[in-house]
Amino acid sequence: MSTRDIEVSVRNRLTRLPDRGSYDRETLYEVLDAGRICHVAWADGSRPMCLPTAYGRWEDDLILHGAAKGRFLEAMAGGAELCISVTLLDGLVLARSTFHSSMNYRSVVIFGRGERIVDPADKVKALDLLVDHLAPRRALEVRPTTEQELEATAVIRVPIVEASTKIRTGPPGDAKADLDLPIWAGVVPIVPEIGQPVAAPGSEEL
Amino acid sequence: MSTRDIEVSVRNRLTRLPDRGSYDRETLYEVLDAGRICHVAWADGSRPMCLPTAYGRWEDDLILHGAAKGRFLEAMAGGAELCISVTLLDGLVLARSTFHSSMNYRSVVIFGRGERIVDPADKVKALDLLVDHLAPRRALEVRPTTEQELEATAVIRVPIVEASTKIRTGPPGDAKADLDLPIWAGVVPIVPEIGQPVAAPGSEEL
Repeated sequence: MSTRDIEVSVRNRLTRLPDRGSYDRETLYEVLDAGRICHVAWADGSRPMCLPTAYGRWEDDLILHGAAKGRFLEAMAGGAELCISVTLLDGLVLARSTFHSSMNYRSVVIFGRGERIVDPADKVKALDLLVDHLAPRRALEVRPTTEQELEATAVIRVPIVEASTKIRTGPPGDAKADLDLPIWAGVVPIVPEIGQPVAAPGSEEL
Repeated sequence: MSTRDIEVSVRNRLTRLPDRGSYDRETLYEVLDAGRICHVAWADGSRPMCLPTAYGRWEDDLILHGAAKGRFLEAMAGGAELCISVTLLDGLVLARSTFHSSMNYRSVVIFGRGERIVDPADKVKALDLLVDHLAPRRALEVRPTTEQELEATAVIRVPIVEASTKIRTGPPGDAKADLDLPIWAGVVPIVPEIGQPVAAPGSEEL
């Protein structure tokens, strides 16, 4: 087993509709790289917490960040077990019955623990990757991060080891008996479109 | 305090940038009703799990559903504490520095426990609301759910009691010293567009 193989465990083994799932890194990274935000869950005792945040990818690490103080950061950086979900909703799958209706989606779930990136140069690079993940090539345009800003920002890496991808595509799977009903069935695509940028005051001319 | 007031507790009290947050039901429902999927987190011992799923709203209850057997359903229906996040990413907020860059978003977080809806008529109504939440008026078009299908589907309500909404809108908040830099700053909107429906085989003419 290569160290880059995804481990399949009792947690990330897909139990529901496993034929939609995969454990290969290429598929997983395609979905990760296409997403924009993730949901990070952790357990505070028996109490779950789940918050959205931006992310990036640095090779086989997921990159998270946050204000250096705060409970979210403490959970992400403090070594607690994390479950991180990235979900892209691609379409509504309208079958002729409610029961067979579904959604087209791409979903990644990662289990792991976060650790702080300490080296300042690595922090800068990780933040650049996070910014570029959301806005390609933006990291080169902005003014460099100051030492003070870098200190106020915690950057966390979560090695991607235990994870899975689940994808549904295609038309509804109606019951055979329903196929002749005079009810429209099909897929309604949902696409996150990039709108017209709105310049901030002072940069209308740039 | 009205029974419809949102309870503010140590869990749902916003600690980070609380000026972006609110606890009123109207704002919360506006975001819930505009979203399409939620992420449901629960703790399996100290291990967090977080999975995406569809949802609907029936007055002051969040409605979830799933195959009647399976670990996801067990968590949602079994009385475990849940943390449910609905996040709408509205735009990338590009400041002149990485540090002040951000995202425009609407985010709801609900803490609660699920309970099964048992009454068949209530199950049908809850499922109709879930379907109509995703595809308005679709519940009237599909063929009725059979008794067998209804038995194979678990429908769960999570009373919305402990929750919060967080919203960011508007332009970047650059540092004053950065305002004259020759760097474009502004907001890049992201809008989930509904694409052209793709008819399933047999319903092209409908």
